[in-house]
Amino acid sequence: MQALRRPGGSVSVGELGEFGLIAGILARLPQGASSLLGPGDDAAVVRATDGRVVVSTDLMLEGRHFRRDWSSGRDVGHKLAAANLADIVAMGATPTALVVGLACPADTAVDWVNDFADGLREECALVGASVVGGDVSRADVIMLSATALGDLAGVPPVTRAGARAGDAVAVAGRLGHAAAGITVLTRGFRSPRMLVEAHRRPQPPYAAGPQAAAVGATAMCDVSDGLLADASHLADASGVSIDLRSGAFPVPEPMANAANALGHDALRWILTGGDDHALLATFAPAVPLPAGWIRVGEVLEAGEDGPAVTVDGGPYDGPQGHDHFAR
Amino acid sequence: MQALRRPGGSVSVGELGEFGLIAGILARLPQGASSLLGPGDDAAVVRATDGRVVVSTDLMLEGRHFRRDWSSGRDVGHKLAAANLADIVAMGATPTALVVGLACPADTAVDWVNDFADGLREECALVGASVVGGDVSRADVIMLSATALGDLAGVPPVTRAGARAGDAVAVAGRLGHAAAGITVLTRGFRSPRMLVEAHRRPQPPYAAGPQAAAVGATAMCDVSDGLLADASHLADASGVSIDLRSGAFPVPEPMANAANALGHDALRWILTGGDDHALLATFAPAVPLPAGWIRVGEVLEAGEDGPAVTVDGGPYDGPQGHDHFAR
Repeated sequence: MQALRRPGGSVSVGELGEFGLIAGILARLPQGASSLLGPGDDAAVVRATDGRVVVSTDLMLEGRHFRRDWSSGRDVGHKLAAANLADIVAMGATPTALVVGLACPADTAVDWVNDFADGLREECALVGASVVGGDVSRADVIMLSATALGDLAGVPPVTRAGARAGDAVAVAGRLGHAAAGITVLTRGFRSPRMLVEAHRRPQPPYAAGPQAAAVGATAMCDVSDGLLADASHLADASGVSIDLRSGAFPVPEPMANAANALGHDALRWILTGGDDHALLATFAPAVPLPAGWIRVGEVLEAGEDGPAVTVDGGPYDGPQGHDHFAR
Repeated sequence: MQALRRPGGSVSVGELGEFGLIAGILARLPQGASSLLGPGDDAAVVRATDGRVVVSTDLMLEGRHFRRDWSSGRDVGHKLAAANLADIVAMGATPTALVVGLACPADTAVDWVNDFADGLREECALVGASVVGGDVSRADVIMLSATALGDLAGVPPVTRAGARAGDAVAVAGRLGHAAAGITVLTRGFRSPRMLVEAHRRPQPPYAAGPQAAAVGATAMCDVSDGLLADASHLADASGVSIDLRSGAFPVPEPMANAANALGHDALRWILTGGDDHALLATFAPAVPLPAGWIRVGEVLEAGEDGPAVTVDGGPYDGPQGHDHFAR
C-alpha cells in the first residue's frame, strides 16, 4: 500500500489503494446499538426486533445530484444519508442502519472520501443509525448508492394509499429551500446562505414521521420529487384528490428576497422543488396534528377524471416535478 | 409519456421516461413470501422473523464489471443479483429480498432494462427472494447497485473470524471459471462456452451456505476477490494461517483446454480469479462436510510473521487478488 503525497498535498484514492481506503473509512464509522455485526465481513447483521424491516435505496451521481465545486464531501455524505433516511421515516419507522456504495475516480482525494464518511456518520447519528457496510469501486465520476433499514416498532407502516376524503393534508419540514438554493448557485451566487446550505445538506424532519404514525396518519410520503408531484403520487395511490392552499405555506424572508432578486416565484420553489425531504401526510379530521406539522390542504373525493392535485381549487400552472430522463 | 420508436425499432429509456420505465420494470418483478410491502412506496417492508436481518451491498459498473457487448441485460441482472445474494449465504443466512439502483444513459434501450429486470427476477427466484424496491437515475454509463437482505433463522452468523488451527478448509462452487471466461473474451474468443457463460452468469452454490452453518462451520466467506485473497481475509480475521493443496482443485476439461490454447495456467485462474462467488469455509476436523463441499486445505497456527496463506506449504508466486484502484 502506497501513500504518496500529491503535489497539492493530499493523497489520492489510487495512491492509497482499495484496502487502505476502506480501513480509513471504517475508522470513521462507529457502530450503533442496532449493529450486531458491522463492516468487515461478507454482510452485516442488524437488529430487527419488530420482525419486519423497512428498506429503501437511493443513487446519487456527481454532476446530476451534486457538484464537487458546490458541495464538500461532508455535505454529500449528509445529503446521501438524509435522502435515504427520510424514506424510512416516511413509512413511520425509525432508521437503524445504512449501507453505502462508493465508486470514484482513482484521482479522487482521500480527504474527500474521509469527509464524505464523516458526513454519513453525522447524519446517521441524528437518528441513532450507523453505517454497517458498503462497497467501493472505481468510476469516471463519483457514483454513490445507499440503502437504509428501519424498524417499525410494532406499528403498521404508513403507506401512500390510505388517504380518505375529508382528511387534513399536512407537511413537516422545509419546502422549496433546496430548489431555491440550486437556482441561486446556478445563477452564480453563493447566498442567501440558508438556501445554498439547504441544497448542500437537507434537514428532513426525522421525528415527524414516527410521530405522525403514532397518531394514526392515514397516508404519508417523503417530498423528494416536489410537493405537487409527490402529492399526486399519494393521491393516485389512495384514489383521492388533494387541494392545497397556497397561503398556507410560510415563505421565509431569505427565500422571498431571493425570489425578488432573481425574478423567480417563491411559490413555484415550494410546490415543485424536491430535495428538502419534507414529509407530506394526511390525518383524519379529528386528529390534532403533532408538533412540527402544518395543515396545507384537504383530501377530496376523486373527480370524474380520477385523482388530481389542485392549488386553491384549480390546476397549478407550471412544471409539476422531476423526470430523471427528461432532457 | 412518449413511446416513440427508435430507428433500430426499440424504445429508449429517455423516450419512455422515468415513470414508464419503472412501471415496466415493476411488472416483471412479482413479490415473494418475504415481501410484506413491495415497490411503489417510499420504502418496502420485508419479513425478518429472526429478529435480525443480514444486509450486504454491491456496485457494478459498465466497462468495469461488465460490457454490454459481452453480456446481455439479462446476464447482468443475473450477475448483479448473484454477487449480492452470495454475500448473504456466505453468512449462513437465506436471502429474502433485494433492492436495486439503476443509473443509465437516456439512449439505453428499454429492452435492455427489461431484460435486466428479468435476470434479477430469475436469479432471486433460485433462493426464494424477490426485488422489493429500487431507484432509477440517469448517468453516462450504466451503474448498478444492489443490496440484499437475508434471514438467519435462529442460527448465529458464520463470520470470517472463527477458524481454528486443525480445521479443514473447504470450498463449494466453481473457482476460476469466470476469470477464465474473461481471459477468453479478452483474447477475442467466445468459447469454451462454459467459461464465457461463467463470466456472464455466476452460479453461486446458494444452498451450501446455510448447510455449512447448520453443521457448525467455524468461518465462511464468499470468494469474490480470488481464493488466495479471500482466504487471506479469512486468515487475518481469524488470526490463523491457511495452507491449500493445489492438487485438490478439480480442473474441468474446457478450462484445461483453454489454458493450453491460450498459454495460461489453469491453477492461477482457480487461485486468483474472482466473480464465481464460490464459498470458502472452515470446519472442525471431526465434522463430515455437507454435500457439495470439497476439502482443499487445512488451517494452521499463524506463524511468527502473522497469518499467511500458502499453497502446498509455500508462498504462491503470482498476483493474489484484485484492487479496484490498481492501474
